[in-house]
Amino acid sequence: MRIVLDAMGSDKFPDPEVQAAVKAAELWGDEIILTGNKDLLTRKLKSFNINNAPVRIIDAPDMFKMDDKISAGKLRRLQTSMGVGMDLLKNGEADAFVTAGNTGGAMATGLTRLGRIRGIKRPALSVLLPVKDGNCVFADIGANTVCKPIHLLQFAKMGSQYAEKAMGISNPRVGLLSNGEEEGKGNDLVKETFPLLKDSGLNFIGNVEGKELFGGEADVVVTDGFTGNILIKSSEAVAKLLMDILKEELMATPIRKLGALLAKSAFGGVKKKMDPREIGAAPLLGLDGLVMIGHGRSDEKALLNAIKSARQAAKANLIEEIKASL
Amino acid sequence: MRIVLDAMGSDKFPDPEVQAAVKAAELWGDEIILTGNKDLLTRKLKSFNINNAPVRIIDAPDMFKMDDKISAGKLRRLQTSMGVGMDLLKNGEADAFVTAGNTGGAMATGLTRLGRIRGIKRPALSVLLPVKDGNCVFADIGANTVCKPIHLLQFAKMGSQYAEKAMGISNPRVGLLSNGEEEGKGNDLVKETFPLLKDSGLNFIGNVEGKELFGGEADVVVTDGFTGNILIKSSEAVAKLLMDILKEELMATPIRKLGALLAKSAFGGVKKKMDPREIGAAPLLGLDGLVMIGHGRSDEKALLNAIKSARQAAKANLIEEIKASL
Repeated sequence: MRIVLDAMGSDKFPDPEVQAAVKAAELWGDEIILTGNKDLLTRKLKSFNINNAPVRIIDAPDMFKMDDKISAGKLRRLQTSMGVGMDLLKNGEADAFVTAGNTGGAMATGLTRLGRIRGIKRPALSVLLPVKDGNCVFADIGANTVCKPIHLLQFAKMGSQYAEKAMGISNPRVGLLSNGEEEGKGNDLVKETFPLLKDSGLNFIGNVEGKELFGGEADVVVTDGFTGNILIKSSEAVAKLLMDILKEELMATPIRKLGALLAKSAFGGVKKKMDPREIGAAPLLGLDGLVMIGHGRSDEKALLNAIKSARQAAKANLIEEIKASL
Repeated sequence: MRIVLDAMGSDKFPDPEVQAAVKAAELWGDEIILTGNKDLLTRKLKSFNINNAPVRIIDAPDMFKMDDKISAGKLRRLQTSMGVGMDLLKNGEADAFVTAGNTGGAMATGLTRLGRIRGIKRPALSVLLPVKDGNCVFADIGANTVCKPIHLLQFAKMGSQYAEKAMGISNPRVGLLSNGEEEGKGNDLVKETFPLLKDSGLNFIGNVEGKELFGGEADVVVTDGFTGNILIKSSEAVAKLLMDILKEELMATPIRKLGALLAKSAFGGVKKKMDPREIGAAPLLGLDGLVMIGHGRSDEKALLNAIKSARQAAKANLIEEIKASL
């Protein structure tokens, strides 16, 4: 297996990337290809790769900022770490591309370099949400602010393939996010998507609300990119508020402080279960190539988990499975 | 001041209601009018009201279940605790109506008994969200699944009046929930609402995401009822998941258990700050009468807080202020 890792992706690039690449190559024996500034990466690799693990560097001299307005043509020509990495994927020189870089940038680059899977109208950004006793494939979280029923149906089909083939969940339960569980609840998009999902052959469990989503009652949940984006950002913000208030309360008296000290590892356990770094990466569903997105705050460990997710998806032949399922 | 309290509203009615009514009458000297089953309430009141506080009972013999399909005509005739209570409001025999009953039922009853404020196209369900260092008036959380820009503008105007007049926040900051902070981000509804809010004379701070909302950067945040409903339900579910995982982690080893015991009061502090029972009640914005909704899980303390919120809003002449601001 050959995995390309965007060496310029995470907030603290390229150290976490180079370290994760070396570790992954040592652990699994896969060739890891780093794309990015060659001089910088060569220097870093020399200092980290003491056992000469199979890590290769391919130069990608260009960089762009996400707030730049860039035409599709320019995006196609630029030799960015994402562009170069995805070209390797397209040319069959790699089996998966992993990045902790900007999701929108990856989607835009992917659309110009890899294109969509034939028949897929809109690719979706997915994420693995931490839920009770596991994770849920949740899409779209922002690629498509406005969606049509057919888009949500396709997100569900692709998410279901990912859950089944790459995550090993048999007959994944698919839910439709709504403001009420009963059939007939929801806005027009939900009401029109419901019958499509019902007739899709997927294991459709109906509308789900926050309680079912975070309660782990579905393996795949679909929504439009506006609602999905608001949901994940709000969920992160609520979790942060809760932990901030808890911290404040725990520091308020000496006895509580002592208690917090004794129970400290429990807070680590919570962080671990709620932390995107522990979960790995999620695919850009619908691109004609396996592109896996990790969190921008990824450290070495998170990137290693992202590479692990990418290996599983590549091994499962995710893209071919999605094509076959359509 | 005369406050009507729906005695049949909370999950454990009527005990919490009767106790809260007595307590409120004792505390503030207001007359509290309980609506509901007269025999039941008379018996309860006799046992709780040992100091003869000014609590009065008005009979409301009818009940209906929310899942019943009820015509507007029947809703107008039924002598339910909500209907009778709102009639008192309409006839000028009370200054506010408080209920911990079903929000949809209260809205439906309110629309048939009180009607809308002249000029208001759609009343909204609002809620006081616990956010960093305070609360945020958030609407709509479910009355209007599909909204138009004018509706959101009116929610913002009414929410702003509530924050300023009843909550004492001067020049309340108004935000528009979106999937990106920048102007131009959002679905069609958000994009079309943005200029209306900008020109509204309100203290509009632009689009807000979950981070700003729960970070306490706005005093009033508006959205459509589909998105708002999903946001609050998801937020509740995430908070529950987080606390469940924390509990599990804290119980995992004897040392952690000891720590948790010492720090126990801190968890109570978090619960208090995140608990809707501590916050009180929020108005049905747009009804032509002051109807305040508390949480269905309300206990005596929560209902007392709800009555307190209603007193503040009534004292501030909220309905008249909203009318004047339109």
